[in-house]
Amino acid sequence: MNYAVIGAGGVGGYYGGRLANAGRDVCFLLHSDYEYVCKHGLRVDSCRGDFVLNPVRAYCAPEDLPVCDVVLVALKTVNNGLLPSLLKHVAGPDTLVVLIQNGIGMEDDLQEAMPGLQIAAATAFICSAKTGPGHISHMDYGTLTVANYSCRDQARFEALVQDFKESGVETFVAEYKLARWRKAVWNMPFNGMTVALDTSTDALLSNPATRALIYEQMQEVIDAAAACGVTGLEPSFADKMMANTDKMTPYKPSMKLDYDCGRPMEIEYLYSRPLALASAAGCPMPRLQMLEAQLRFISNK
Amino acid sequence: MNYAVIGAGGVGGYYGGRLANAGRDVCFLLHSDYEYVCKHGLRVDSCRGDFVLNPVRAYCAPEDLPVCDVVLVALKTVNNGLLPSLLKHVAGPDTLVVLIQNGIGMEDDLQEAMPGLQIAAATAFICSAKTGPGHISHMDYGTLTVANYSCRDQARFEALVQDFKESGVETFVAEYKLARWRKAVWNMPFNGMTVALDTSTDALLSNPATRALIYEQMQEVIDAAAACGVTGLEPSFADKMMANTDKMTPYKPSMKLDYDCGRPMEIEYLYSRPLALASAAGCPMPRLQMLEAQLRFISNK
Repeated sequence: MNYAVIGAGGVGGYYGGRLANAGRDVCFLLHSDYEYVCKHGLRVDSCRGDFVLNPVRAYCAPEDLPVCDVVLVALKTVNNGLLPSLLKHVAGPDTLVVLIQNGIGMEDDLQEAMPGLQIAAATAFICSAKTGPGHISHMDYGTLTVANYSCRDQARFEALVQDFKESGVETFVAEYKLARWRKAVWNMPFNGMTVALDTSTDALLSNPATRALIYEQMQEVIDAAAACGVTGLEPSFADKMMANTDKMTPYKPSMKLDYDCGRPMEIEYLYSRPLALASAAGCPMPRLQMLEAQLRFISNK
Repeated sequence: MNYAVIGAGGVGGYYGGRLANAGRDVCFLLHSDYEYVCKHGLRVDSCRGDFVLNPVRAYCAPEDLPVCDVVLVALKTVNNGLLPSLLKHVAGPDTLVVLIQNGIGMEDDLQEAMPGLQIAAATAFICSAKTGPGHISHMDYGTLTVANYSCRDQARFEALVQDFKESGVETFVAEYKLARWRKAVWNMPFNGMTVALDTSTDALLSNPATRALIYEQMQEVIDAAAACGVTGLEPSFADKMMANTDKMTPYKPSMKLDYDCGRPMEIEYLYSRPLALASAAGCPMPRLQMLEAQLRFISNK
């Protein structure tokens, strides 16, 4: 199978790099780093072992990409409006597009824009960033959970999972809705709260008032998920997430990093879409709705 | 009737000053400004007419105050733990103590500490501040709403209202619980939200997301008030408060001024107490509960 990576930042550069480093055929669509990577390759400094890819199958225009069997999309969701044009050439009738993104609703929107497309979702639990041109720094974690959204070709989906596993990525398969909502249990409280209170995960958990609030926000997500028909997300999952986060090193979620760097925040898919789904299912999430309003205010300042 | 004023800042200095300026017998308990006021008097620059009181019946020790018929308390509620000792000498068996303060629950706590005391509540709608030693600047508004909490002497209560009116203070009488909860409809959203988002009332209202949130928070207070047995606070009161605030000049509520000046915030009586009452009445206020948690976090930073 051949692969294309669209969005070769901390996430796409890492997972695409791992596949290429294991010998898979991987094209990278690059923008600002294109010339640098053509000359110097792609360097991944990783807590699981450093590597450099050189040469890299780099492209700077989406229309030059060959049709690929699998496309990994690791763009920030604020750019998802570009996906139909970015995918126009690389996606053939049988291509599987995997959205390695945070949020809920991205697959619905892409499917609506490109009805025949085969789509899978992936959630990455990783601490990784692009720290220079053609340079990815992978600090911690790295597991990937892949979920089938509309892939008709089960063999291709399984081959993708197998390729990740053989490339040194710890990979799990989960039911689609469960994967997206389970990730939201952590993402919705921590991404917005670290921005709203200009802080990091450890400070939120060490203050009793915000610790209780984070837990209540997690329960809102779990209740909303159940109302939206997700099965298998137990109330005790919040306790597990709290305990896991207690064990993590002080952490700034991706939205906090985006905000601190002056990049747009992923409010739409991280908050607005799950909030709309929850409300439509009769289970609004008042605390997270409030957080969304605060983030909208902050992003407009 | 003779008066004592405890807390001669923007609120106590203004209302006590008005009474004294109209010829009422008013003692002021002063702390840092005592020597300055003894020498130079108390100056009130007011949009309703400037005046200077000189001499002022100033005291610097609570035990030197004479027993007074009425004591106006205009301390920040963070200092209410001091009230029993501050009132020990000035309050005789028939004294009426009027708490001109923001929040809910102050009268309950004071009554528990001083069971026989006659207590009234007052809410001030005023833009006023102490801007220098013995110097009060009254910028806008100025109405006072007085409510009987435990005053057995109806004639004294009415005389107090009459004295304010004759001193040029627009004064209303309201039922106790209604007065406190009605004020909370404005106070709870705006005080905390201006701190949490480091902004002022106009910016919160001009952003559609925070405008909707402020309105929802007001409805939470109105619903909780009804659950707590308050009658006469209609859902449409939120619309009235929104419209009134739209007409106000950009405004920083007292909690925002306190925070900006590094003073402690009145979280306990402005948030924690009404939240506890609402929860006990089976009508929690999730958005305001979240705001309280954020304020606790901010105040601990």
